[in-house]
Amino acid sequence: MSVLFDRVAFIGIGLIGSSLARVMRRDGLVREIVACARRPETLATVRELKLADRVTADPADAVAGADLVVIATPLSAYAEIGRRIGPALKAGAIVTDVGSVKGTAIRDLRPSLPETVHFVAGHPVAGTEHSGPESGFAELFDGRWCILTPLPGADAGVVEKLTKLWQATGSKVVTMGPEHHDKVLAIVSHLPHLIAYTIVDTATNLETDLQSEVIEFSASGFRDFTRIAASDPVMWRDVFLANREAVLEMLQRFTEDLTALQRAIRRGEGDKLQELFTRTRAIRRAIIEAKQA
Amino acid sequence: MSVLFDRVAFIGIGLIGSSLARVMRRDGLVREIVACARRPETLATVRELKLADRVTADPADAVAGADLVVIATPLSAYAEIGRRIGPALKAGAIVTDVGSVKGTAIRDLRPSLPETVHFVAGHPVAGTEHSGPESGFAELFDGRWCILTPLPGADAGVVEKLTKLWQATGSKVVTMGPEHHDKVLAIVSHLPHLIAYTIVDTATNLETDLQSEVIEFSASGFRDFTRIAASDPVMWRDVFLANREAVLEMLQRFTEDLTALQRAIRRGEGDKLQELFTRTRAIRRAIIEAKQA
Repeated sequence: MSVLFDRVAFIGIGLIGSSLARVMRRDGLVREIVACARRPETLATVRELKLADRVTADPADAVAGADLVVIATPLSAYAEIGRRIGPALKAGAIVTDVGSVKGTAIRDLRPSLPETVHFVAGHPVAGTEHSGPESGFAELFDGRWCILTPLPGADAGVVEKLTKLWQATGSKVVTMGPEHHDKVLAIVSHLPHLIAYTIVDTATNLETDLQSEVIEFSASGFRDFTRIAASDPVMWRDVFLANREAVLEMLQRFTEDLTALQRAIRRGEGDKLQELFTRTRAIRRAIIEAKQA
Repeated sequence: MSVLFDRVAFIGIGLIGSSLARVMRRDGLVREIVACARRPETLATVRELKLADRVTADPADAVAGADLVVIATPLSAYAEIGRRIGPALKAGAIVTDVGSVKGTAIRDLRPSLPETVHFVAGHPVAGTEHSGPESGFAELFDGRWCILTPLPGADAGVVEKLTKLWQATGSKVVTMGPEHHDKVLAIVSHLPHLIAYTIVDTATNLETDLQSEVIEFSASGFRDFTRIAASDPVMWRDVFLANREAVLEMLQRFTEDLTALQRAIRRGEGDKLQELFTRTRAIRRAIIEAKQA
């Protein structure tokens, strides 16, 4: 593939940012990579792993002269980053991000960005329970979705360029509105994580003797939840705060369904249980047919 | 390994029973295998796959002359099976089972078994989301736990023989009291399954347009739940009814923890969320250290 950008600046370079940087390097999609991180340890790791040509702790310094700016920090840092990079952005630069919630990403970044730059928010739906630049790998996005949420009036050429970039990672790219994105992700990703965190928390609060057995016998279902519940705490704190309304709405529905199931168990309503458990099997089959399993 | 039993009778031969039969065959642990199932299709499959030397639909016929009887049906069939096999059991025979709840297994079987037989309930903590004799495989139990719950006064030689049998499957064998077993399994297995069934149910009840997107983007967390929620409906109906008290108790704790988390999200209490998400990471590490991941 040919060069897509002269200079890219990563603001934040953890699991996602460093994985994207690795793809760009591997495929020669960019001439120069600049990485910006707040913590000196992160910058040292980036230097050591040669993930960037230049590192800096100053976002304004990082974005100066960049054609592409990828914001890949936790969501709570966006507003401040917007304020710091806004005046330093090159005219015509493309600004994008990789955050899991798009409504607040746009709300927090857009006001600080000058009219002369192109802003298209994005979300590669990929990740592992590990974090930090040392956890990234070029194959992370392979076969996964990347959702772009361009605003009305976005430059079609810019959307196409970002689409090419994400396609190079192996992702399938799709566009949708930011609100719709946040609703879909609330059910497929945010609620499952919330539930996983909770069940692991419930286990943590057990009497000590039971707790060690929970660890021993975890393979019987519990283990799958612990993997999800080991994801980055700061990133997930921000996701739940940023997508609060949609998450609370889905959580409400979930709680209602759980209460109905609890009632059926308490009353010994076997038929209801069996009917429900048969129904849920169909969704698994649909996922297998959609080649997502 | 040398022959452990002359004749074994499987009452019920689905995923678990057929996997154990495969191990017994592979390792020459038994001279003759008799399989009993209610449905003619199951018997036909067992015959076709040559999983048994003889098949029958009559439990009394199956257990006649057997040294070992393995009950491997859903839990709701136990009481009736006990009544039917009780009078036909050979003196000195060993009766065991593979059910996921041990309190009711013992309650339902024990009264019908004559004093002359040895009864030690068991639970291989293994499984997949597939069911039926065609889904079994000899490696299913490899590296997994098998929990035996002998009653006070159980014959030590019998417990040892069953231990040898399960060790041959590759399982690590442990003994504990049936009540304690049911409490541990309620948190590590039954509650996770209940939650997974519920979240998939919640997704199923979404508006149609959202539903297809849930399937498309399932890889972001939701997918892990659908695998669990595709497990055998009848088996799981019986598990929740049989372990009702312990499951409802764990569910109560879970709901309290979930409500606290919901409240923290609604109030925007980021510190509380981050503190909790950091705590849950530790359990994952403990599981990895215990080599269960």
